[in-house]
Amino acid sequence: MTNYLHYYLALEQAKKSYAEGGIPIGAVLVKGDDIIGKGHNQRVQQLNPILHGEMDCLQNAGRLQDYSDTILYTTLSPCMMCSGTIVQFKIKKVIIGENVNFEGNIPFLKEQGIEVELLNDKETIKLMANFIKEKPELWNEDISETKE
Amino acid sequence: MTNYLHYYLALEQAKKSYAEGGIPIGAVLVKGDDIIGKGHNQRVQQLNPILHGEMDCLQNAGRLQDYSDTILYTTLSPCMMCSGTIVQFKIKKVIIGENVNFEGNIPFLKEQGIEVELLNDKETIKLMANFIKEKPELWNEDISETKE
Repeated sequence: MTNYLHYYLALEQAKKSYAEGGIPIGAVLVKGDDIIGKGHNQRVQQLNPILHGEMDCLQNAGRLQDYSDTILYTTLSPCMMCSGTIVQFKIKKVIIGENVNFEGNIPFLKEQGIEVELLNDKETIKLMANFIKEKPELWNEDISETKE
Repeated sequence: MTNYLHYYLALEQAKKSYAEGGIPIGAVLVKGDDIIGKGHNQRVQQLNPILHGEMDCLQNAGRLQDYSDTILYTTLSPCMMCSGTIVQFKIKKVIIGENVNFEGNIPFLKEQGIEVELLNDKETIKLMANFIKEKPELWNEDISETKE
């Protein structure tokens, strides 16, 4: 069952990144009722290409022995880096804000045994659509589409 | 064609990590003749679960517009996080030190159009085998096998 309070904390991270001039994608990692990590894309803020929202969140959560009872909330459908990480870490479930602005890899996650829930939250879709319209070059860099 | 000088710089990174008490996996990113990034696993040194050798290397290389002419040298066959990242970043080619101690995801990389070369370098195999024998719990944590 989606905990919307947890989801809105991920969305808050995305808004924080947008306000900083960064890419508005956020994530939180939850274990039981505890939020054990949160983060947002850091490409602009830290000049860091590997810190997508999900990766920044997992970095901030630190070293865990076991992710099999964790849920990752993310505002955007995960790219291949973040999807591979979710599979590698054996995260139980991913709750995704939207896949309208970026398709991501939901079928891959499901094939690998990850539970997936897709919200297609209107506010999240609008935030991401606005960003892509405002800064298309930055968005294309983040999804490795600079040559197309 | 494998540039063994570049490969040995990746192995040097692995040895550096081992000397620090960390997980001995290293990587370098090369563009033409230039080494544009190097790094090693930072789970122990930075208490960071996402900084496998390949990820630390890509973080250190910073923001690039295009990875399609880059080659990633890594001492160990990439896990699903690092393989997903290689695919997402559209890195041209991966040169892998060994897949004896960890199978990794070579078929996945090839299916996704990444060129792969496997060296199975004896010194690299021995370094990794020694580490796994010495610190099995740490190794299992790094590959998410703590429950098995």
